[in-house]
Amino acid sequence: MINFTVGPVQSSDAVRAIGAEQVPYFRTPEFSEVMLENERLVLSFAQAPAGSRAVFLTGSGTAAMEAAVMNLLTQADKAIVINGGSFGHRFAELLGIHRIPYDEIRLEPGRTLRPGQLDSYAGKGYTSLLVNVGETSTGVLYDMGMIAGFCRREGMFLIADAISTFLADEFDMAALGAGAMLTGSQKALACPPGVSVVALSPEGVARAMSAPRKCMYLDLRDALVNGERGQTPFTPAVGTLRQINTRLREIEAAGGAPSERARIAAIAADFRSKIKELPFAIFSDRLSNAVTPLRPLTAPAYDIFTTLKDEYGIWVCPNGGELRDTVFRVGHIGALTTADNDALIAAFNDMRRRGLI
Amino acid sequence: MINFTVGPVQSSDAVRAIGAEQVPYFRTPEFSEVMLENERLVLSFAQAPAGSRAVFLTGSGTAAMEAAVMNLLTQADKAIVINGGSFGHRFAELLGIHRIPYDEIRLEPGRTLRPGQLDSYAGKGYTSLLVNVGETSTGVLYDMGMIAGFCRREGMFLIADAISTFLADEFDMAALGAGAMLTGSQKALACPPGVSVVALSPEGVARAMSAPRKCMYLDLRDALVNGERGQTPFTPAVGTLRQINTRLREIEAAGGAPSERARIAAIAADFRSKIKELPFAIFSDRLSNAVTPLRPLTAPAYDIFTTLKDEYGIWVCPNGGELRDTVFRVGHIGALTTADNDALIAAFNDMRRRGLI
Repeated sequence: MINFTVGPVQSSDAVRAIGAEQVPYFRTPEFSEVMLENERLVLSFAQAPAGSRAVFLTGSGTAAMEAAVMNLLTQADKAIVINGGSFGHRFAELLGIHRIPYDEIRLEPGRTLRPGQLDSYAGKGYTSLLVNVGETSTGVLYDMGMIAGFCRREGMFLIADAISTFLADEFDMAALGAGAMLTGSQKALACPPGVSVVALSPEGVARAMSAPRKCMYLDLRDALVNGERGQTPFTPAVGTLRQINTRLREIEAAGGAPSERARIAAIAADFRSKIKELPFAIFSDRLSNAVTPLRPLTAPAYDIFTTLKDEYGIWVCPNGGELRDTVFRVGHIGALTTADNDALIAAFNDMRRRGLI
Repeated sequence: MINFTVGPVQSSDAVRAIGAEQVPYFRTPEFSEVMLENERLVLSFAQAPAGSRAVFLTGSGTAAMEAAVMNLLTQADKAIVINGGSFGHRFAELLGIHRIPYDEIRLEPGRTLRPGQLDSYAGKGYTSLLVNVGETSTGVLYDMGMIAGFCRREGMFLIADAISTFLADEFDMAALGAGAMLTGSQKALACPPGVSVVALSPEGVARAMSAPRKCMYLDLRDALVNGERGQTPFTPAVGTLRQINTRLREIEAAGGAPSERARIAAIAADFRSKIKELPFAIFSDRLSNAVTPLRPLTAPAYDIFTTLKDEYGIWVCPNGGELRDTVFRVGHIGALTTADNDALIAAFNDMRRRGLI
């Protein structure tokens, strides 16, 4: 199978080789070194300001989203959520569960946030803004410069969910003044799923260290304190963390985050240039390099996913909910090449010959 | 390295081979089948009663412990915790964080619960009991028949953390009348860490389905509802779940839980018979087959761990906290053989010759 989903994605041979090894015992100085290097490289690739910290949670991206909401905000906050799809909606749900006052800016699926839409929220006592840098469900990449400028002017704490965009799109945590950045192991980090990452600016660290303890498993203070010596409060996904280490070092050796971003951008551009003759429309505004959201003009989207899976050995990423029959997505993260793009285009052309699209 | 810790433990070749494969996309009928089979086999091996369910959380064992506390108990409950070490203490901490009234029965490290110790708690309105079937920190295996009998007479809901004893020691969920059983991927399941399991009796399912939603990530109702179709609310550790599937099928093919338990018991008995001449005392009462807790008579326990790691290529399991210099543990779960035991005994004998123990 060739995997064009947005997670889990294809891993490099070196990462897969680690997956075949026995998982080592981890309460050791040797594993602490791996973890401290993981933290250093993630902060470096995120361009985090001096004094930042990163912790690794054994959990899905949602674990990181919920840990951010529970540990970085309190009922004294008043938040804005940019809700342009399932993951924006998830932030709103999390704020509701944890009783943190919020308002949401709802966007039509596939539409980005435009400058005027924030203006009416200025000067109204909002203390925090939560945004998915890329709304994975539709591939929209928000204008983080604009959003961060608003937060800076308003003195707001910015929580940036970069789960699917970290390493795929530009993200300069220091320049944006973001307080938290989230990501996951199975996106552009191209490792198996099961680990999520919370990077915190000094202000984010201060918020986490003073938060009341609402949940043991998602407690960021405990993670930060244990992380000082390269350890975790609970048995982590040791194997995946070793794979993340291999991958971070691979990226560093190949030129760091800018090189990886350029590589993904080139794969995305190649794909987008090759679909011009196919009966698909680009669904969204302002695309992330991570994924291309397509609206098929001649067939239901979910049927295309199923046919590619069952008859061509290719996974694209289906949508759920209201967009199930309208949109499917083609990911560009992970170990993919332009030859893989060609295989997908050939499958589309064959489906067209067969009258399936 | 030979790994005698109690997690992560050594995996079989078949499990490691899955670790080397690309992780597949998971919102598919193919992955749902894997998950439904995982649920069926875990429930069968736990001897769960008809109508039971099992869910797989992407997280450490503590995630399962906290999910049980948050979803199966409310402030209307009044719980007893058997606290005989770090994991019993963790249950008490979790009940405190979530404001569930409780009392704890504290035991000296290494001591089991004796019948008279429960008697004074009878008829006092307790509604639930939480116990680690095996207290992993000291290797004590509690008398679950006695505890379950007390719970049955008192009409109490029994939460059994079998994280390190599942498949290593007898556990008959139906006969015990347990409402919940917890386990983790990296113990006798002998897969990489990162997945924990919550098995629920019909009463446990009913409690979870009616619980208020306190946490999205650890919400058992959401997991149960998604699990009906073999799916999870969030991207799970797909690779580890496929390894669990391989491992559960291996165990089934080799005769099921009784055969695996007999295999582990034989490894434990072999080790225990071979240490009689060494300067170690067994630290605890009523041992689990999963692990042998040893009190060295002639050297600090942590030094023995370090020497075995650095000079013999062997991991045993160190203790933390107050027992750091007093106790180390030798695990018997995972892909170990009596030849591995012999290698460890040879290392001990060499250390004795060198005057290190």
